[in-house]
Amino acid sequence: MTDPLVIFTPSGKRGHFPKGTPVLTAARQLGVDLDSVCGGRGICSKCQITPGYGEFSKHGLTVAPDALSDWNAVEQRYQDKRGLTEGRRLGCQAKVQGDIVIDVPPESQVHKQVVRKAASARPIIMDPATKLYYVEVLEPDMHEPSGDLERLAAALKSQWDIDTIRADLNILRKLQPALRKGGWSVTVAIHKGHRDDHHSILNLWPGYYDGSIYGLAIDLGSTTIAAHLCDLRDGMVKASSGIMNPQIRFGEDLMSRVSYAMMNPGGDVEMTAYVRAAINDLTTELAAEVDIDAGLIMETVFVCNPVMHHLLLGIDPVELGQAPFALATSSALSLDARDLDLNVMNGSAKVYILPCIAGHVGADAAAVALSEAPGQSPDLVLVVDVGTNAEILLGNTQKVLACSSPTGPAFEGAQISSGQRAAPGAIEHITIDPDTKTPRFQVIGSDLWSDDPGFAQAIATTGVTGICGSGIIEAVAELRMAGLMDPSGLIGSAEQTGTDRCVPDGRTHSYIVHDGTADGGPLIAVTQGDIRAIQLAKSALYAGARLLMDEMKVDTVDRVVLAGAFGAHISPKHAMILGMIPDAPLDKVTSAGNAAGHGARMALCNVQDRADIEETVGQIEKVETAIEPKFQEHFVNANAIPHATDPFPNLPALPHVSFNMGGRDPGSSRKRRRRG
Amino acid sequence: MTDPLVIFTPSGKRGHFPKGTPVLTAARQLGVDLDSVCGGRGICSKCQITPGYGEFSKHGLTVAPDALSDWNAVEQRYQDKRGLTEGRRLGCQAKVQGDIVIDVPPESQVHKQVVRKAASARPIIMDPATKLYYVEVLEPDMHEPSGDLERLAAALKSQWDIDTIRADLNILRKLQPALRKGGWSVTVAIHKGHRDDHHSILNLWPGYYDGSIYGLAIDLGSTTIAAHLCDLRDGMVKASSGIMNPQIRFGEDLMSRVSYAMMNPGGDVEMTAYVRAAINDLTTELAAEVDIDAGLIMETVFVCNPVMHHLLLGIDPVELGQAPFALATSSALSLDARDLDLNVMNGSAKVYILPCIAGHVGADAAAVALSEAPGQSPDLVLVVDVGTNAEILLGNTQKVLACSSPTGPAFEGAQISSGQRAAPGAIEHITIDPDTKTPRFQVIGSDLWSDDPGFAQAIATTGVTGICGSGIIEAVAELRMAGLMDPSGLIGSAEQTGTDRCVPDGRTHSYIVHDGTADGGPLIAVTQGDIRAIQLAKSALYAGARLLMDEMKVDTVDRVVLAGAFGAHISPKHAMILGMIPDAPLDKVTSAGNAAGHGARMALCNVQDRADIEETVGQIEKVETAIEPKFQEHFVNANAIPHATDPFPNLPALPHVSFNMGGRDPGSSRKRRRRG
Repeated sequence: MTDPLVIFTPSGKRGHFPKGTPVLTAARQLGVDLDSVCGGRGICSKCQITPGYGEFSKHGLTVAPDALSDWNAVEQRYQDKRGLTEGRRLGCQAKVQGDIVIDVPPESQVHKQVVRKAASARPIIMDPATKLYYVEVLEPDMHEPSGDLERLAAALKSQWDIDTIRADLNILRKLQPALRKGGWSVTVAIHKGHRDDHHSILNLWPGYYDGSIYGLAIDLGSTTIAAHLCDLRDGMVKASSGIMNPQIRFGEDLMSRVSYAMMNPGGDVEMTAYVRAAINDLTTELAAEVDIDAGLIMETVFVCNPVMHHLLLGIDPVELGQAPFALATSSALSLDARDLDLNVMNGSAKVYILPCIAGHVGADAAAVALSEAPGQSPDLVLVVDVGTNAEILLGNTQKVLACSSPTGPAFEGAQISSGQRAAPGAIEHITIDPDTKTPRFQVIGSDLWSDDPGFAQAIATTGVTGICGSGIIEAVAELRMAGLMDPSGLIGSAEQTGTDRCVPDGRTHSYIVHDGTADGGPLIAVTQGDIRAIQLAKSALYAGARLLMDEMKVDTVDRVVLAGAFGAHISPKHAMILGMIPDAPLDKVTSAGNAAGHGARMALCNVQDRADIEETVGQIEKVETAIEPKFQEHFVNANAIPHATDPFPNLPALPHVSFNMGGRDPGSSRKRRRRG
Repeated sequence: MTDPLVIFTPSGKRGHFPKGTPVLTAARQLGVDLDSVCGGRGICSKCQITPGYGEFSKHGLTVAPDALSDWNAVEQRYQDKRGLTEGRRLGCQAKVQGDIVIDVPPESQVHKQVVRKAASARPIIMDPATKLYYVEVLEPDMHEPSGDLERLAAALKSQWDIDTIRADLNILRKLQPALRKGGWSVTVAIHKGHRDDHHSILNLWPGYYDGSIYGLAIDLGSTTIAAHLCDLRDGMVKASSGIMNPQIRFGEDLMSRVSYAMMNPGGDVEMTAYVRAAINDLTTELAAEVDIDAGLIMETVFVCNPVMHHLLLGIDPVELGQAPFALATSSALSLDARDLDLNVMNGSAKVYILPCIAGHVGADAAAVALSEAPGQSPDLVLVVDVGTNAEILLGNTQKVLACSSPTGPAFEGAQISSGQRAAPGAIEHITIDPDTKTPRFQVIGSDLWSDDPGFAQAIATTGVTGICGSGIIEAVAELRMAGLMDPSGLIGSAEQTGTDRCVPDGRTHSYIVHDGTADGGPLIAVTQGDIRAIQLAKSALYAGARLLMDEMKVDTVDRVVLAGAFGAHISPKHAMILGMIPDAPLDKVTSAGNAAGHGARMALCNVQDRADIEETVGQIEKVETAIEPKFQEHFVNANAIPHATDPFPNLPALPHVSFNMGGRDPGSSRKRRRRG
């Protein structure tokens, strides 16, 4: 008589096993993805499975009601204490008695897939570097003296087939009390990086530890430090938070920070201390929000631009401020958190920093490449991560190119007269009626438009305080569509435009969006200076994209992905009218949300993704905008709105107006700012 | 015509090479041990060789005067600037032109042998984990962006075939300035431990670094911390120093320190901080003595007993104070110096700690095993490392056994009425005339005996201050030989012994060695309490050795090696009369000096020795004296001087005296102290 047939779903893996084989054992032998922390001792309940009974015509199988062993004492105790979902069994306790179909529910799979937010982002499949293992350790024996660590290592080898254990002094200090308190059983958090030849113990708990362990995915930006606190068991984001980068006091943009380091001996050390302290604060805040001990944070993944990369590591960024923009190191880094003074999280916590692509194209761009995978796209995709610097990727399965472009902080509302960060009270959407030249707008914190009834009440607590980055882009594009601004970016006078919202402002004109002065609020206008700042930013962005298109020998792209926290809020139509991005069908311009942050989460939750992005970065071709002569030409041509020479066939026709009175082109003569 | 024949001495390696082959190239291809730091660029001069000309009948070779190329400009410049020893050439510059015999002088060999001090100690062959390499690095190229570290790694690969480079943040911070200052050439100190799969950069210098790098070999004892500062290029000891272990304030012996940790929360942390600070002080002191930057110290090797091992690492030693004496970890440890707060030496310095053998047999015993190699001895050798704890090894090529025995500090002059540390003024040698019962002695600081003319003047500055460890052993043995003390250890009265140097002291008697009271000096006597303390210590030592002999199933050993700083000063005859060690021919009792310190130096200078001792320690059989019932029996029998039952045929006949007046055996009823 043949042994019973066991079929696992959804994998479809199957095999014959002797009667009495525990389901977990059968799963392991078949390589079925079934979780277990306690190693089959009926403690952890991670190996829950759902047996299927009755007719399975698909498999040609009839499962008898007694195909699994009856509930045993261990399952019964678990059921009494914690309750088992109806129809579930513990895989380590239920034994095969006859042919059976066994479903492994998603939460019992080690390599769970995390639900994704952005459509374009690649899925996160759980395979973290740090996992929990419960293990029972031999007691010390004077006749065969050996260290507690050596006996723990032997237990990990025999019970989990884990080799080559290392423990730092922090763990060695905890080891003896934990083993004795746990009655010679412990749960250990073990880390194995993709390039490690050893396993590191990051933490341990007496007996079976029933809780979770956590990781941080941090997008360390010039302006904002954004972090996700993720559960390393299931990949769920437990909390997200962002704080201002305290280095802003040393300079708004990256080049001013490099200058600060150059001009002030020890300035880099000072900036490093500030940013590390801020990350510690952020860690404390996130742990408090979820009400966990920050010591449960075992890993942190960083993505950042090259200057922040060096300043985080404690390397003077001076070389990044001048050609040839040499990085101290470009490879991915695996570090101990304590080496970065990140001492709020676990004392043995690990840090992984994604590789940099080039001196101006950082680990943040690598994270975007990991998240958006242009190299896996059959059609030609342009990925633009909009921030103080824009990271730009262009590619398909054939080739991927990358560059960065110094857009400056205008897109984030800085250097704009009424600009502000995206916060309640900020105008984020705006339209201008082409006939009446009257604006209507929405502010963050309310869904009502400014001409809707009840708007005033809805925004009473915040007021209308300014214009955020996406709002200013829409405002400038709307000015162009309403015929209030000409292609050179010049705002017309009241006579030229027929609206007294266009008011003189020195030798130029401004357009009044909202006058709150009667109520003690601000006068919110788009000034000629604002237009110039946006033009500089969008020209740099477009020129970078155009340079990659030159390199790729194409004049159009198939689709455009706008990434970055700000990219998520940009209206594709307005961005294209502005000429921020090359012309493309509007339905092919999508937002990837915070792609760099998503890439950081991927690397946090899946160790293979780290290996993948390291390989990918090696294949990306880097284009250095600073030394490409054509960049300057592209920049000048991109100054016009939408563009001086490139056609934008996907755009509606824009008004033919010209407000230039002196024949002078007020945009092209301005000096372009380098790097920011 | 065949290519010229090149024969290297002393290796005897030979091969034919095309005319024009540099000697260094020929040496490398043949695997000849010829040094080079600059990689053949004529900078470092480490590859100096001595060509031999004329008739070499042994090799059947006649070497013509033009067998090597003429001096070139590089050699000439070196000669002009620094001078080359007569007859020497630079191996990288001199090219083979005809058959030639080339001698590699010892200082040009990488694997130099270090001159040894103690006859029994194994030689030190240079093969340190950290070596210097000069390397020329490609400049950064914006068109092929890569990090400076990645280009350095590529240069090390192509110029030295060194793979898998790692650099910590300390090095990353130094890298960019060094490369630029050195005009894209640097000298790097690279460490590769015997278990590492990677090379670590520990330091770097712009251009060619002409200096040396250093290591510390530290014997971390309960009482004394002794350190050798060694040149890692040639193994020479540049300076040696010892300081008191500041933990003494927490307890003289190890068990009192364990008690301190148990009784005082945080007490272990406090003791750890003290000992680390002391090591930093010692490092500063040694570097100052040799006038080098302490930052040139790249490696430190520690040997120590298990309690000091744990306290150095920051592990609470509480488990070592009670059965089963479990170590937190017994394996050898490779650490970063900064993890031990050893921040005086190089910021990236490495620490290696030898493995522990068992809960009471530490890394110091492992170092003795490395130095004395009992497992390589054809005859049966007993190695005794005498200190507050005695480490005892017994073995030959068949088997090696180890134990430790709690001798207490009496051998070091502690708990002795006139005892003191070995310092000027201390009596170190003593004889007692068996007829007159009068003593004569030598004190540290003078070679004169106390009855020599000029003695008083010679010791005028120090005086006679006390008796050190070796002196008290000689004194007790001499008392026995002079018939002043009976085999039970009892000192006779003036009437019984016929000398008024035997004076009443409570219910017992003391023997006056020196009365300095007339000059305001001390009265130096051997009291009955002193005898008891020495009896306890020597009984523990002998019982440990006897236990190993039982285990080995032998009643005698072929030879005895006395190790330890104190062991070096013990008179073999007196030690054997005392019954400290088993009977053996006196010429077979030798001193190994500071064998543990020598073992530490071996591990510092030769990375293969680390692998060897780790393997050896795994093969040593451990005997736990604390749980062997026979230990107590051996201890009681060893109380008599020399011994109650074991014969000592190699000793001269000792006087048959008995001073026991009450029939009570004053030795056996005393409670033996556990562990010290």
